[in-house]
Amino acid sequence: MYITSMSNNIIREVLSLHNKKFRDEKDLFIVEGKKQTEEIEHDWQICYFVATKEFENKIQNNGKIYYVSDSVFKKISTTVTPQGIMAIVKKKNFDIDKITNKQNGLFVILDCLQDPGNLGTIIRSSAAFGVDGIFISKNSIDVFSDKVVRSTTGAIFKVPIITECNILEIVKILKNKNITVYSLDLKAKKYISQIKFNMSAAIIIGNEAKGIEKSIIEKSDEKIKIKMTKNIESLNASVACSIALYEISKQKNL
Amino acid sequence: MYITSMSNNIIREVLSLHNKKFRDEKDLFIVEGKKQTEEIEHDWQICYFVATKEFENKIQNNGKIYYVSDSVFKKISTTVTPQGIMAIVKKKNFDIDKITNKQNGLFVILDCLQDPGNLGTIIRSSAAFGVDGIFISKNSIDVFSDKVVRSTTGAIFKVPIITECNILEIVKILKNKNITVYSLDLKAKKYISQIKFNMSAAIIIGNEAKGIEKSIIEKSDEKIKIKMTKNIESLNASVACSIALYEISKQKNL
Repeated sequence: MYITSMSNNIIREVLSLHNKKFRDEKDLFIVEGKKQTEEIEHDWQICYFVATKEFENKIQNNGKIYYVSDSVFKKISTTVTPQGIMAIVKKKNFDIDKITNKQNGLFVILDCLQDPGNLGTIIRSSAAFGVDGIFISKNSIDVFSDKVVRSTTGAIFKVPIITECNILEIVKILKNKNITVYSLDLKAKKYISQIKFNMSAAIIIGNEAKGIEKSIIEKSDEKIKIKMTKNIESLNASVACSIALYEISKQKNL
Repeated sequence: MYITSMSNNIIREVLSLHNKKFRDEKDLFIVEGKKQTEEIEHDWQICYFVATKEFENKIQNNGKIYYVSDSVFKKISTTVTPQGIMAIVKKKNFDIDKITNKQNGLFVILDCLQDPGNLGTIIRSSAAFGVDGIFISKNSIDVFSDKVVRSTTGAIFKVPIITECNILEIVKILKNKNITVYSLDLKAKKYISQIKFNMSAAIIIGNEAKGIEKSIIEKSDEKIKIKMTKNIESLNASVACSIALYEISKQKNL
């Protein structure tokens, strides 16, 4: 099938997936680019590919592939220089209970994170430091938006991510399972390097401008911060989270 | 003076500064936004402000302030929701010799960094971890572009930055001053946590996709990498740099 019209049903579905409302409704999202589509792990379901003729006989897939004209692809792409390939992928549901049952687990909780690059980078660092689950609050940016998916560079397929979370609820669940919950907070008195992380741990990262919501900090077990040479500065949210994960994973693997 | 025309000379100068060529020629750059302009340190020279009437009598400055109409400001702004204020700031020249003479100095060398957010974040982390100087290669993204300036959140005024560097030349200068130069490289055998950083150190960060150029790695003293739980992953360049700076600054302050 070769599509040249923007009114084709498949093209209309792809266009709708640029919108969170339809991603939620259909439980699908877009993965665009050659390298990115190759990084989709086998336990994720690719519903179909949309590609230009250039990719004919070059896509390994048992499912459907729709070929489209260059001009159609350009219109459904969100990149400046489209490579001519995208996959429409089914979202995955993760079982909170199963994820949090892990022995010596490491978890990340994101409260109202707003920048797509920061969210993507946190997912990437989480994959690198062996995080067992990421919980994202309702009011955060959508993890399935094109910018976030792109900046995870494939890591979105490697860490269980639970979205639309009520963070107070999540903190309660984790604490009930003896997972220590730390708030990364500039106003903390203890440095992260002073903590002995010898069991299951979760760290909460807050909004880029406002930090973690007060009611959530109060429910966490401890406030921690990163030692800086000049304490007047603050770090980028994804950097702060990554340093915390580095420090914890280092201690765990001593 | 109240400007309503886009053909006004000041407005034309501001517009030209969105372009690296003219920023280089005039040695000026733009700092836009209320918080950002407030973060300009006193040892930087603000040539003039451009603002909407809203800011009348609200700007503390001995120099010139040009007031412009909302519609003119919108056209010279690079933000989605302009706040109505920008400063035109003179670039600063730093003396490499003076900077590198510092006892127990910590330096960052950037080879062909391309993403504005990454560069901004590295400058921000450098300020937080007490870096004494950042050297940026000729083929890197311009540090004075609006996106980079914005993502430093004021840190651009707190760390000496030397641009348009020949990195091989810089490595030579640093080594001559007994500063140990480390390449942050995924193929390294030594972990950064195994290194004893007890004297002056510099770390090189490479391009987001290709890493550090081979000839530069060869001239550095040692290759180091960050320990990850899953070694197949790589980290975002600004995250990798920040973790390295965190680790070094932690060791230095023990």
